[in-house]
Amino acid sequence: METIKVAVVGFGTIGSGVAHLLLSQQQRIARHAGCRLQLQYVVDPDLTRPRNVQLPEGLLTADLSKVADDPEIKVVAQLIGGIEPDRSILLRLLESGKDVVTANKALLAQHGPELFERARQLGRSIAFEASVGGGIPIIAAIGQSLTANQIVSLSGILNGTSNFIVTMMEESGVEYDQAVKEAQRLGYAEANPAMDVDGTDAAQKLAILAQLAFGASVPWQSIPRVGIDSLTSADLRYAGELGYRIKLLASANLTQDGLELHVSPTLVRSGYPLAEVRGAFNALTVVGDAVGPVFFHGLGAGQMPTASAVVADMIDTVVGRTQITFRRLEMWPTRPSPVSLCDHAGRQARYYLRFRVDDRPGVMAQICGILGNHQISIASVIQHEPTEEEQGSSVPLVIMTHTASEGAAQMAIEEINYLDCVQPPSVRMPVLDESSDVVE
Amino acid sequence: METIKVAVVGFGTIGSGVAHLLLSQQQRIARHAGCRLQLQYVVDPDLTRPRNVQLPEGLLTADLSKVADDPEIKVVAQLIGGIEPDRSILLRLLESGKDVVTANKALLAQHGPELFERARQLGRSIAFEASVGGGIPIIAAIGQSLTANQIVSLSGILNGTSNFIVTMMEESGVEYDQAVKEAQRLGYAEANPAMDVDGTDAAQKLAILAQLAFGASVPWQSIPRVGIDSLTSADLRYAGELGYRIKLLASANLTQDGLELHVSPTLVRSGYPLAEVRGAFNALTVVGDAVGPVFFHGLGAGQMPTASAVVADMIDTVVGRTQITFRRLEMWPTRPSPVSLCDHAGRQARYYLRFRVDDRPGVMAQICGILGNHQISIASVIQHEPTEEEQGSSVPLVIMTHTASEGAAQMAIEEINYLDCVQPPSVRMPVLDESSDVVE
Repeated sequence: METIKVAVVGFGTIGSGVAHLLLSQQQRIARHAGCRLQLQYVVDPDLTRPRNVQLPEGLLTADLSKVADDPEIKVVAQLIGGIEPDRSILLRLLESGKDVVTANKALLAQHGPELFERARQLGRSIAFEASVGGGIPIIAAIGQSLTANQIVSLSGILNGTSNFIVTMMEESGVEYDQAVKEAQRLGYAEANPAMDVDGTDAAQKLAILAQLAFGASVPWQSIPRVGIDSLTSADLRYAGELGYRIKLLASANLTQDGLELHVSPTLVRSGYPLAEVRGAFNALTVVGDAVGPVFFHGLGAGQMPTASAVVADMIDTVVGRTQITFRRLEMWPTRPSPVSLCDHAGRQARYYLRFRVDDRPGVMAQICGILGNHQISIASVIQHEPTEEEQGSSVPLVIMTHTASEGAAQMAIEEINYLDCVQPPSVRMPVLDESSDVVE
Repeated sequence: METIKVAVVGFGTIGSGVAHLLLSQQQRIARHAGCRLQLQYVVDPDLTRPRNVQLPEGLLTADLSKVADDPEIKVVAQLIGGIEPDRSILLRLLESGKDVVTANKALLAQHGPELFERARQLGRSIAFEASVGGGIPIIAAIGQSLTANQIVSLSGILNGTSNFIVTMMEESGVEYDQAVKEAQRLGYAEANPAMDVDGTDAAQKLAILAQLAFGASVPWQSIPRVGIDSLTSADLRYAGELGYRIKLLASANLTQDGLELHVSPTLVRSGYPLAEVRGAFNALTVVGDAVGPVFFHGLGAGQMPTASAVVADMIDTVVGRTQITFRRLEMWPTRPSPVSLCDHAGRQARYYLRFRVDDRPGVMAQICGILGNHQISIASVIQHEPTEEEQGSSVPLVIMTHTASEGAAQMAIEEINYLDCVQPPSVRMPVLDESSDVVE
């Protein structure tokens, strides 16, 4: 049986998991690859930090040129994270004739066009299943299995940290700050979780999916995004009363006006698959015009789930599937995008609105009047009797609207916030539209 | 752009859907395939029956040799269904040098070894994504995306007709016969639904998945199977009281004693993804040793979902991915199976038991005594006060057990059925074990 030499660059959590699989599961991997994958080097500047995998003598090196200059090494898993030096290393590996596997969504969202164009010029491939959804085969599903479809919409829970925090707030009734602390204590959130909780990570993954599913080249920074950092347990409770859960969703919808993308805490009807995703799990609903809705659920991060996707990509590259897929995907082509982005303000959605209002006559009429002026009609209202502490002070008023445009909703809220009887900030979240899922 | 000629054999529901996609989505398909797919012939003995797709003049023919003898036709979707003449036609197409795409699970479960061996001998490929789970990319996920994993278990709702019937019984409280009639009226069940409701269809699909995920060559007839045809709405109600739903699950579990396969109505804890699958949807949980549980959900049958999978397979074949995958999968190899089947009687599970018992003293003690003699311990019991009609006659007794062996459970039930105070038949259903899903 032939032996193919491979290498891992970056000996962090994911790199250790990949090295562990390559070293401990040689027979299994050889059966799927049709040849032995021999781990030749693991490259990392830190040679001493303890990791949870034992490398054979001589494998660990700080010298990238040992990999770059070895023509026998065909496939490299590049798992450093961050932008630089990851970008430069990836380019150097491509230029040294390696096919590359990466899990770095930030790098792809930022420099995808440059990296993919360079790989095409050099006749090399980049595999990136692990960059979105960890071990869930989302990239393969959209890029290979659903190619007979026009993808109509994507809605995903793509950030496990946020979902863990929101689930904890919902199940334990704790507020955001306390849930973050607990997530940090349990290892589900970084010391600085900003990129996870403010929607950046989800927007980067959505930019990759938008390119894959719609051919839309979208700088991730231009995707409207709201994180979970201002979510309150009260909103989760009111949503529950209305029959919904709140999830941080990354959404793409192909409308008559073009492609609409956003990341936002979103109300999802209880019992709907995306609503039931708990803890650190990720999930994605893809709706295709032929297949209807397909739902994927699994661990979107973590050492071994991510390593599972990286090693599968290495096997795919060794057997030659990746090279075919890479050519056919045409990710970030130099020609113009076949789909235009639609104006975010024109997006249509139902909205959950929460105001803090004075508990006195006429308030409801004023607010409803402004909504009506903006052509926003009301589907349901929750206003409970004020509690003893609330007597005479402000009380929450929750309104679910019928379908309205994003622009109208935004203007109405701004106007309402100017009312004397309203204490900003007010809360506004979209409700997931399930109508595109109805295929039967 | 190059043109590749393709053909469809079988102009039924699925064949019409495939022809529709090939004719109406030429540009989309060409983008993914890198070449034009030209539908050259649709072969069917019935030239006159109306279908919901309009074929251009000259495409429809009853003469298979037009396809077999045309060397320019490279890829054929073979969509007849049943065993013969499907088997002979598939062999003839392979021998004529065609790569074949099929949705026929019955044929693969029955003649997979012969067909795949012949394809290997001839250097041809067979793609079969549509054979299990309709439009859900289950075959690609297990065969390509999860190859870094040892699959530990599979649990699937693989028959949409059964799930539709069970969902209707649960939601409307109707009994089996009435639910079947309603499913037939709505087109979710055939005039003779035997193969769907008795577990045959699910067992055939499980045999394909067992080969794909575990390399286990298992005649589908040897898979222990129980259908939904003896399910009562009372059992669905009691399961609900205990916090479970009942689903017809096809299950494969890799145990220390070997691979354990079965199809059975199974109690699944409410809120668990498989429990929430409603109506005609299919779903599958795959647990891998690295990735943990991955859950797939979508339309497992129907014209366009199935056509979506068939056309994706045709594209995969045209670009060359199928040929690589086909070689690496080694489905039904001539060498012996790497995994042995374990004795079904040794299988460990928790059980739901329902007895009809006389409403008099000492009954519970007798039944619990027999269970104890067989080392089966009791987790919970439901026995309600008898209703007015039940006074003095028999009442239902529901028992949930702790983990016990299948053999012990079966023997205990047989013994209990001989008691004077028990009116057979008694009901016994396993409870889905979620312990292998706990990865964190």
